[in-house]
Parts: sequence; structure tokens; C-alpha cells
Amino acid sequence: MSGTITRPRSPATAALREIQEPVRDRLDLVVEEMGRIVTSELSLIEDVSRHLLQARGKLFRPTLTLLASSVDDRPQERAITVAAAIELMHLATLVHDDSVDHSVLRRGLPTVNSLFSHQVSVIMGDFLYSRALHALVQQGDLDVLRILTRVSNELTVGEMRQLAAVDRLSFPESEYYELIRAKTATLLSAACEVGALCGSRDRRLTLALYGDRLGMAFQIADDILDYVEDTAVTGKPSRLDLREHKVTLPLIAALRAMPATHRARIDAFFAAEEPSDEFVAEVTAIVIDAGGVDYARRQGERFAREAETAVRALPDSPARSALVDAIVYVMDRRS
Amino acid sequence: MSGTITRPRSPATAALREIQEPVRDRLDLVVEEMGRIVTSELSLIEDVSRHLLQARGKLFRPTLTLLASSVDDRPQERAITVAAAIELMHLATLVHDDSVDHSVLRRGLPTVNSLFSHQVSVIMGDFLYSRALHALVQQGDLDVLRILTRVSNELTVGEMRQLAAVDRLSFPESEYYELIRAKTATLLSAACEVGALCGSRDRRLTLALYGDRLGMAFQIADDILDYVEDTAVTGKPSRLDLREHKVTLPLIAALRAMPATHRARIDAFFAAEEPSDEFVAEVTAIVIDAGGVDYARRQGERFAREAETAVRALPDSPARSALVDAIVYVMDRRS
Repeated sequence: MSGTITRPRSPATAALREIQEPVRDRLDLVVEEMGRIVTSELSLIEDVSRHLLQARGKLFRPTLTLLASSVDDRPQERAITVAAAIELMHLATLVHDDSVDHSVLRRGLPTVNSLFSHQVSVIMGDFLYSRALHALVQQGDLDVLRILTRVSNELTVGEMRQLAAVDRLSFPESEYYELIRAKTATLLSAACEVGALCGSRDRRLTLALYGDRLGMAFQIADDILDYVEDTAVTGKPSRLDLREHKVTLPLIAALRAMPATHRARIDAFFAAEEPSDEFVAEVTAIVIDAGGVDYARRQGERFAREAETAVRALPDSPARSALVDAIVYVMDRRS
Repeated sequence: MSGTITRPRSPATAALREIQEPVRDRLDLVVEEMGRIVTSELSLIEDVSRHLLQARGKLFRPTLTLLASSVDDRPQERAITVAAAIELMHLATLVHDDSVDHSVLRRGLPTVNSLFSHQVSVIMGDFLYSRALHALVQQGDLDVLRILTRVSNELTVGEMRQLAAVDRLSFPESEYYELIRAKTATLLSAACEVGALCGSRDRRLTLALYGDRLGMAFQIADDILDYVEDTAVTGKPSRLDLREHKVTLPLIAALRAMPATHRARIDAFFAAEEPSDEFVAEVTAIVIDAGGVDYARRQGERFAREAETAVRALPDSPARSALVDAIVYVMDRRS
């Protein structure tokens, strides 16, 4: 391919394109609908929206909604608006997260807090969220509203659990699962469940279960990535969770299996405000040696199998195949 | 009264108690309902909620909802939940505002951002808002949801307009009205309108109009207070809007009427990052001398008269009397 302008695609990106194939045209409509929902006569809001929407993102949650609405090949028109609202709710939480974490980059672009201000990001997150909800209210499906207001509340509970999990080496595995369910799995589950409500209502529980297990696998894969990713590939600063003293599954599992000398090093690491790169590398090696990453991988695979069992209960269709592929995508992604 | 433990009440406080008299028992239920809506198994959330709810606040918006639901003496039970949700939405915006403004005190207590952290306040604002909405969704009145999601979005637009109005001496009077409508009047109007939906549905437009005009008068009175309040009485730092270069109605009106020498002083003031107390006092005097406060007062009175005309169209009742008194309270309050 040298000499052409085609950029090499990572395997994960290619897989996402395949997953999105059955709903590609409708995903374009989702992006249009997002623009319509956030339209404002105020130029500052328009500027921020344009900035946020120019990085289209992976649209993973709208993809799930559209696929879930199509498992019996009778998707309703309104799935577009519901999918757009879900992506906007997700975007609202990203804007607030970046503001709270003082992040400077998101989807390869400057964050709202770095490009505009902290004030603008707090207000803009509220703007996106309330606009998304208003669009859903206009549709008038109280079941969709019930699911999505509950889930957006659980996202905030997940954020609070996250704050409580920092610097806490005694963080139990059971609470870790509650945390990742609240901060990640509930929204993926909801994206699938409301998709069913815009297609085959009786697939609701099956698709909610699939989305929940997919979300659990998704977040565990994310947490593993923090230990195994190669900075040269991702282009992101490495071991961010570890540097921020976030306790995730690989560490939780490793703490049970490591010798006392290693445990002392972990304690020292968590006492260090800004650990050196060497210290980060040492702790990473300790966690991997103690089998923490292997354990996390096995747990992720368990959730992935449960997701597959759930979705295989549906009749065969291009949408179902894509949902099965989504499990592989979640397990294999590199960024 | 010396020698007793009774604290002297300001006239404004006394008036609020009278206004709340017809709905006093139900206001207590609103406070209970707020506690129920925000219940969480997470101790950090419970801690923040307890802190926020211990300062009961004036409950002005729930008061309007309950009174509006009672104008024909057939208030529905669900008005309690709706009123509680409105106060929680209001509280959510206060928590975000304080975080964005780095305020340290609210209702005589430390703000969430100062007592916990900036992160906790952003997340907690989102928590309160999504819980309030979820409680409304459970009730299932789509009209109430339509009004309150639209209004909460307008509040964010108002915040954005506020950011755009800082340091802008050319801020036109018409945009000032759009700003205060978005940031204040829409919520007071909505509080009254959804009250009607929980009582006499056909009073909806009348009460929405009353609430809008009341809200406009409320915010103008607030903006006047920044120029005329006596710090010794309010216990707050004086001239905060002016110090933060917020352009409000007294200044907008004064700019049209002042001589060039005074205008030059205003320009210098807005160029000064941290003006001295003397400079603040000088600019305050310039604005008052140019008739800025008198003009703002006349505009506030105009909105107050329109509020009264609207509410007088309702049949006489204790609730209507209280709504009329609320106009006086809004115009006369000192804090």
C-alpha cells in the first residue's frame, strides 16, 4: 500500500466497520439527527457543538441500538432519534468527565475544557443531556424514558464509585463489578434494550442481558488495556489508570497472589504522588507476573460467553451476526 | 424581644412565611419526598445529599407549584413529587453554578465544591438532575416532562448567555431580557405551569404567564439588589455582579444616560481586573446617578403588574392571595 494515501487500518477499526455494515445508512441519519437535536441560536453553543460533533467518534452505542432494533428486520423510524439521544447522553458524560479530570485530548481533538473553559464544559454537558432528554420526551415512549433516566443516574453513581475506588487497595472484586456495571455496562445494556423497544418489544430482556454482559466485557478489556497497551500503538500516555491510583481488576486479582515483598512495592507505589516511569513499569510487571491480567482476561471471557449465549437465542439475521461480531470487537480492541 | 432566644425576622422572611401558609403541611411533605428521591446506597452520595438538604432553602419554586395546584382547591397528591423534583432540579443547577463560579458559601453553608471537591459537585449535580427526572418519568405525565426538560435546557442556555454577557458593555437591553428569562423566569413559569397540571389543567396558560412575569421581576429585583444592598444587612460580599463585570439592567440603562466623563470611568472599571472598593463605590454611584436603578425598578414594576393582572384573572382563594403576595415578596426582598 506504500505510495497511496490510504492509511493502514487497525484490525479493530476494520471489525467495527463490518459490525456497522447492516446499519451504515441509518448511522449517517443518527449523526444528522444529533446535529438537529443540539441546534441553538446561541453562537457559543453552536461553536461547542460543532467542535464536539466534528469528531464523529465510534458511534458504538447508536450502532447497538440500531442493530438491536433490527433483529427481526422491522426497525422503527424512531430508532434514529433514540440512538442519537443515547450518543448525546454519552457525549455529555464525556464532556463532564474530561472537565472533572482536566483532560486535554478526546477523540484526537482538544477537549471542551481545554479549548473553551471549565465553565463552558460543565454547562455544555448539561445542555447536551437536557436536549437529548427533551428529544426523547417529544417521542413520548415512557419505557424508553424510564430506562434512560435510570441509566443516566446510574452513570453518575458509577462516577462516584470511581472516586471512592481511587487509592483503595482493599477495593473488593464484587464492588469492582458494581462499579463497571454502573459506569459502562448499564448504558450499553440500555442502548440494546431501547433498540428492542424500537423494533421487537419481546426481545427486550434478551437484548438487555446481551448488552449488560457485553458492557462488562468491554470495561474489563479496557482495564486490561491499561496494563498491556503499547504506547507506540495507542498514541496515548500509558498506564493512566495506574498512575492515577485507580484500582481495577488486574490489580485486585494480583494482590491476592503476590508475595509480601511485591505487596510492599505496591503499597509504596500507592503512597507515591507522582511515581516515576520505572516504578510504573515495575508495578505493571508485578501485576502481570502475579497473574492479574490473566485472571481479568478469564473474567472478561466469561462475560463475553454470556453475551454470546444471550444473543444466540435470537433468530439468525445480519443484525444478530453483527452483534456477535461486536463481542469479538470488544475483546480485541487496542484503543 | 431582648433576653429571649427568638431571632428577629426580616420583613421579607415574614412575608414568605405568610405566602407559604396555605401549603405549609405539603411543603414538609415536599422536603420528605426530596430525601426519598435522592436516597442512595452509596455513602458518599448520602453524605453530599444530607449536606445539601440540611439547608432547606426558601423552597420558593415548590411553593409556587403547590399554590398553583390549589387555585381551585383541588390539588392532586402528585403535586408533592413534582414540586420536589423541581426543587431538586434547581438544587442541581445551584451545585453546578457554585462549582463553575468556585463559590464557597450557599444558604449559609459551605458549597459542595468547597466541602467535598469540584469533581464531586459536577457528578452530584448530574445525580440530582437525573434522579429528579427519573421520579417525574415514574409519574408518567408527558406534559410535565416536556415542560421541565425544555426548561432545564433553557437554564443551560441562560448560563451560556450569562458567560457571553460578562465584560460586554454593548450588551443590549433586549438580550438582557432573553438572558434573565432563560436563567430565571422559565423555571418559575414552569413551576406554576406544572402546578396547574396537578390541579386545574385549564389554568395552565394563566399560571405560566404569571410565573414568567414574576420570574422577570424576581431577577430584575436581584440585579437591582447588587447595586443597592447594604452589606451589613445581607452579610454577603457586596456588588458581586459588578466586581465580576456582569452587565445587568441598571448599568445597561445608566450607560445610555451618563455623560462622557462617567462613561470613561465605566470603561476603565471594566478594564480593571480587580477594582478597588473605592472604584466599586464610584461606579455604583455613577449608575445610580444616571438613573439606572430607577429605570430597572420601573421595568421590574411593569413585570410585577403584568404578573398581578394575570393572577387576578383567577377566582379569589387563599392560594390566589398567596400568589399575589408572592409578587410583593419578590419586589421587596433584601437577600
